[in-house]
Amino acid sequence: MSMPTDPVANLAALIRCPSVTPAEGGALTTLEAMVRPLGFSVERPMFSDDGTPDVENLYARLSGNGPHLMFAGHTDVVPVGDEAAWTHPPFGAEIADGFLFGRGAVDMKGGIACFVAAVARHIETTGRPAGSISLLITGDEEGPAINGTTRLLDWAAAKGETWDAALVGEPTNPDALGDMIKIGRRGSVSGTVTVHGRQGHVAYPHLADNPVRGIVMLAEALMNPAFDEGSDDFQPTNLEVTTIDVGNAAGNVIPARATLTFNVRFNDRWTVETIQAEIHNRLDKAAARLRLRPGRKEPVAYDIHWGVRPSHVFLTRDDRLIGTLTSSVEAVTGRRPGLSTSGGTSDARFIKDFCPVVEFGLVGQTMHMVDERVALADLETLTAIYQRFLADWFSGN
Amino acid sequence: MSMPTDPVANLAALIRCPSVTPAEGGALTTLEAMVRPLGFSVERPMFSDDGTPDVENLYARLSGNGPHLMFAGHTDVVPVGDEAAWTHPPFGAEIADGFLFGRGAVDMKGGIACFVAAVARHIETTGRPAGSISLLITGDEEGPAINGTTRLLDWAAAKGETWDAALVGEPTNPDALGDMIKIGRRGSVSGTVTVHGRQGHVAYPHLADNPVRGIVMLAEALMNPAFDEGSDDFQPTNLEVTTIDVGNAAGNVIPARATLTFNVRFNDRWTVETIQAEIHNRLDKAAARLRLRPGRKEPVAYDIHWGVRPSHVFLTRDDRLIGTLTSSVEAVTGRRPGLSTSGGTSDARFIKDFCPVVEFGLVGQTMHMVDERVALADLETLTAIYQRFLADWFSGN
Repeated sequence: MSMPTDPVANLAALIRCPSVTPAEGGALTTLEAMVRPLGFSVERPMFSDDGTPDVENLYARLSGNGPHLMFAGHTDVVPVGDEAAWTHPPFGAEIADGFLFGRGAVDMKGGIACFVAAVARHIETTGRPAGSISLLITGDEEGPAINGTTRLLDWAAAKGETWDAALVGEPTNPDALGDMIKIGRRGSVSGTVTVHGRQGHVAYPHLADNPVRGIVMLAEALMNPAFDEGSDDFQPTNLEVTTIDVGNAAGNVIPARATLTFNVRFNDRWTVETIQAEIHNRLDKAAARLRLRPGRKEPVAYDIHWGVRPSHVFLTRDDRLIGTLTSSVEAVTGRRPGLSTSGGTSDARFIKDFCPVVEFGLVGQTMHMVDERVALADLETLTAIYQRFLADWFSGN
Repeated sequence: MSMPTDPVANLAALIRCPSVTPAEGGALTTLEAMVRPLGFSVERPMFSDDGTPDVENLYARLSGNGPHLMFAGHTDVVPVGDEAAWTHPPFGAEIADGFLFGRGAVDMKGGIACFVAAVARHIETTGRPAGSISLLITGDEEGPAINGTTRLLDWAAAKGETWDAALVGEPTNPDALGDMIKIGRRGSVSGTVTVHGRQGHVAYPHLADNPVRGIVMLAEALMNPAFDEGSDDFQPTNLEVTTIDVGNAAGNVIPARATLTFNVRFNDRWTVETIQAEIHNRLDKAAARLRLRPGRKEPVAYDIHWGVRPSHVFLTRDDRLIGTLTSSVEAVTGRRPGLSTSGGTSDARFIKDFCPVVEFGLVGQTMHMVDERVALADLETLTAIYQRFLADWFSGN
């Protein structure tokens, strides 16, 4: 059995598995076959949950004497979208013009392929590492994310697993390999607000309560003023109203109900609890002030439903972990990566409860798009960065 | 053939015709049979238009030597809604507890039934009137109103018909017969505003333009400040935003587009042209000030589509017409009706281009509802009012 030292071959094998969430698609079996020759023990726990599909996951461990590094990621991919628009088949792993094409090329079978190649090269050149390496790979990152990383972490911890640091291989670089390491993430909270009015005829507004008037004012109260101006490590908190819907097709009718949904990405000046309290406060103050029609005495009646599973903000403080990754990127690319807390949520938000976590992977530009692809040169470079990181982190440099 | 002097019998016969717009349902045939014995000549023009159903209408004239009075109305009715919820069949014309039940009882087969009875009684007691009476009855008032009153007026005018005054028999009384005569109507203009943004991920708002931000600000600019405080004869102008719709089900996505629809009912301080200019001005000013994201230089891009066929505001200035109707109401009911320009639009907005027009009919409380019904006593009272009006108007009192 050959050693998986070639990230291009590793990735091509993974792309050929059509593992659109929640399908395993052969991807975990392929990965298992890839890492067993390296000495990893492999487990494939399946998690179930009422109401969401069963999902298969993978936990592989190469045990050694020393600290324990986790590499985390996912083999599931988003749907291909308009398959006819792809210039190369999305599960074909075809190479053209120096690029490997396929769904998951950068998000994030590519990161896994490079990390496995880096471990293989490390073992070939240096021998087994002075510690343990585990792969925590889910098949449910792009889906509901219920039967994925969070349950896999609990499952492993219940077996007695502990980790000293974690590296998530998601695409973190906006433009070029070496741009950006992620050392934290903003929190995320969503909510749906409904204003209850009273239906009526537009010519008789005094007999009705127009909930559109209320939803507009509550939307404004959510959006203004700014929540903060950012913090040392984070962008400003930002709230977007993502939809307002009334669905009233009758132009001469005042509707009975209006709803809006918002999402707020908040920095470390807030917690889930304090940002929710601030939002409640804004809505209550606006609702108390508003009237849905002239002369109406009652304040606006509204209710709010918070989205399930808010994400907590976090910032990694492990200087050696961050420093080792930064110097590895710089040594290989010649560029010093920025340390960022920007962007969306990732599974790092679950891992941070178990050990310090950083994120570094490929360039994300084509993720989720038609013709997702990765430069062959980038696969080689990322493998070199990961290999350097393994060497330095395990040697204590 | 019996004379149609009983408004209850007239109305029962009309209610039994299921004339939901655009169906004639036998209603015009029933009406024709009712008025021919009174000496009316009857024509039943059918109007067609691309895209809307063909509609049959009725124009009946009793010719005499003297001024020409038009009575205008419609035999079409709105759908019955939840038929199972009616305590009496909607086309059954059943009498119970002093009420006649049925769709159209007050809106407005009842008004027609009373007017025909009043004409019959006038002829029985006084002889043919010293002038002409015409019935301008459409089958398309509750529908698109394209092949109805407006075309019927043009058709009759093209034949050389002219009128000195018109009485519309729509239900005008809020609570009790004698409350209110309508002597004018506000204008009505509708529009749909679309804000064009740029789709993106909520975690990267600087790469997107959230059109919800724009639609909220434009909605606010439409609603505030008040357009005016009313005029001598009219309520304040009022704008209602009747719907806002985005339809974005993805909570982590900033949508590309947001729309709102509004309707403004405006008084005689405005014309269709000036109110549209004011709305354009409000939107332009707000759009120029707004940014859909921090740092964006361009103002908000929006477009507006005006609803087809705005309604012009009008106020009837014929003192004798208004005075005769007022004194007739007062003589029969003992109550002096208010002169109002409130409420929705009516076909009077078309008639006012041909002659002075006033509106007086039944009590509107159950119109368009389940169990639409009219008090038998009200039918007798309205017939007496119309009969008194005919006598006084034709005698020049």
